[in-house]
Amino acid sequence: MMPPQLPPGSLIKIIEVIAILVGAFSGFIEARRKRMDLVGVFVVAFITAFGGGTLRDILLDKRPLFWVSHQEYAILIFVLALTAAPLIQHLRQIVSERLIVIADAIGLGMFAIAGVAEAMRAGMPIFIASMMGVITGIFGGVMRDIVCNEVPMVFRDGKPYAICAFFGCWAYLLQMHFGAEHDFALWTSASGITILRLICWKFDMRLGR
Amino acid sequence: MMPPQLPPGSLIKIIEVIAILVGAFSGFIEARRKRMDLVGVFVVAFITAFGGGTLRDILLDKRPLFWVSHQEYAILIFVLALTAAPLIQHLRQIVSERLIVIADAIGLGMFAIAGVAEAMRAGMPIFIASMMGVITGIFGGVMRDIVCNEVPMVFRDGKPYAICAFFGCWAYLLQMHFGAEHDFALWTSASGITILRLICWKFDMRLGR
Amino acid sequence: MMPPQLPPGSLIKIIEVIAILVGAFSGFIEARRKRMDLVGVFVVAFITAFGGGTLRDILLDKRPLFWVSHQEYAILIFVLALTAAPLIQHLRQIVSERLIVIADAIGLGMFAIAGVAEAMRAGMPIFIASMMGVITGIFGGVMRDIVCNEVPMVFRDGKPYAICAFFGCWAYLLQMHFGAEHDFALWTSASGITILRLICWKFDMRLGR
Repeated sequence: MMPPQLPPGSLIKIIEVIAILVGAFSGFIEARRKRMDLVGVFVVAFITAFGGGTLRDILLDKRPLFWVSHQEYAILIFVLALTAAPLIQHLRQIVSERLIVIADAIGLGMFAIAGVAEAMRAGMPIFIASMMGVITGIFGGVMRDIVCNEVPMVFRDGKPYAICAFFGCWAYLLQMHFGAEHDFALWTSASGITILRLICWKFDMRLGR
Repeated sequence: MMPPQLPPGSLIKIIEVIAILVGAFSGFIEARRKRMDLVGVFVVAFITAFGGGTLRDILLDKRPLFWVSHQEYAILIFVLALTAAPLIQHLRQIVSERLIVIADAIGLGMFAIAGVAEAMRAGMPIFIASMMGVITGIFGGVMRDIVCNEVPMVFRDGKPYAICAFFGCWAYLLQMHFGAEHDFALWTSASGITILRLICWKFDMRLGR
Repeated sequence: MMPPQLPPGSLIKIIEVIAILVGAFSGFIEARRKRMDLVGVFVVAFITAFGGGTLRDILLDKRPLFWVSHQEYAILIFVLALTAAPLIQHLRQIVSERLIVIADAIGLGMFAIAGVAEAMRAGMPIFIASMMGVITGIFGGVMRDIVCNEVPMVFRDGKPYAICAFFGCWAYLLQMHFGAEHDFALWTSASGITILRLICWKFDMRLGR
């Protein structure tokens, strides 16, 4: 879901792969918890990794979709579903909770800021652009939960997740409004979301209802 | 979801806002019943208000979406989610059941006829246009129920709701076919849906299964 | 969901109608099992019959949708929902399980190969094209199960269904790659899926988890 204007450096590539793998990984876990078979595991992982950006692109009427023009990611998730999924239980023991949360927070920041940048480039009004950023960040997980027949976690656990993405998107929009350099705005906002999310997680913050 | 050809009079504007608020309100209630947090309340209200028209526009490949070119409505629902949602319990005591049903019936008529008019303008065949009208009228609620992990109410309660919209859409299509003036066809059909829906509600009519 | 390049012979037309009727029929059964009313029965049957191809066309940004330019199929399902749905219990006693499985296997082959052929014509990369074939074949049923508030059957029963479609799509892609005649590739692959599916059903094969 990374927008094309990101410089194709190796750091970006690595973070991009991490963000997609984390999405897929959370899909693997949820699908296994629901006792799905191989097909379910692959589809749910795929939807979790690419659902948010795909919904955004459909709403913006942008084609081709990210995963269509980068089929290597679809193949990667396919191979992982075939090989790694049966090992998920073991993987969860090796990979600490902390590492998953950190990777997920990085993914949230990257996806959300890529989403808001894409929406601004498509000429969206500013509030809608911020919504598109949040949609890109969270709707993979929302679709995962709908397919798994659950009320989406991000709508009910009261933890600031979408809200971190929302604030980060506005940090990006404000920086752009006041003439900041684009790459600077992009990286500070994405990191801001990641850091904010990790602080909320560290102190177990919750919203009131 | 109002089509552009509606004259921009103040009455229209008021009904339009009412229709959207009623959709959002029903989303608020359902989201609270499911004990969702602030994010869930906003998203579910938004989906209920705009889901039907958004699905229609995606099926017709029409852009920009209504809520994208009128971001004031998205902002309105956002502000309501922040301020009014906690007061929903009280609001339900103040606002009578009767008033909600009336407002909802007005919304159903407006949305459905706007949907069928939009579909005819996009050159759809006549039966498909009537389906697009019904989709615009009911799919906000359908998506709300799916996100809330329920079998959609409109598919199972046996009350004529989609069917009122369906008859109204055909009243519009027949009037257009026989050369009626467009505004006349629009208003009589939309009011017809509203009145039919209220009659069905008043006498608690049900379809057989 | 048949691609336009299929010769409009009467055999094709018959198989096309069978594939759509089988999809609708499985929607009828599921909707009745969930005690849905007439509206639910129609919508669920419609989604089951056309959901997979509609999702594919939205992902490919192809319009008009199949059921939009062939409204006779929508009308057919509408009439069946009005007339045949109440008789479903009886129909299930008349129509043997075996017949349903055979018709469904034919539909799976036709839909999947039509989907992969459509995706190749739209210039998709090869792995994505195979995914589009499987999506066309299975997502009608996936959407049916989501609307009916179930974890999609095709993701959890461990029976090779999506996988038969997947192998058949690759049989088509390989034949095209090695320069086979298009109609030959089309028919052998579609029949291959049908036969593979029937063999899996006959011997009650299951995937490991």
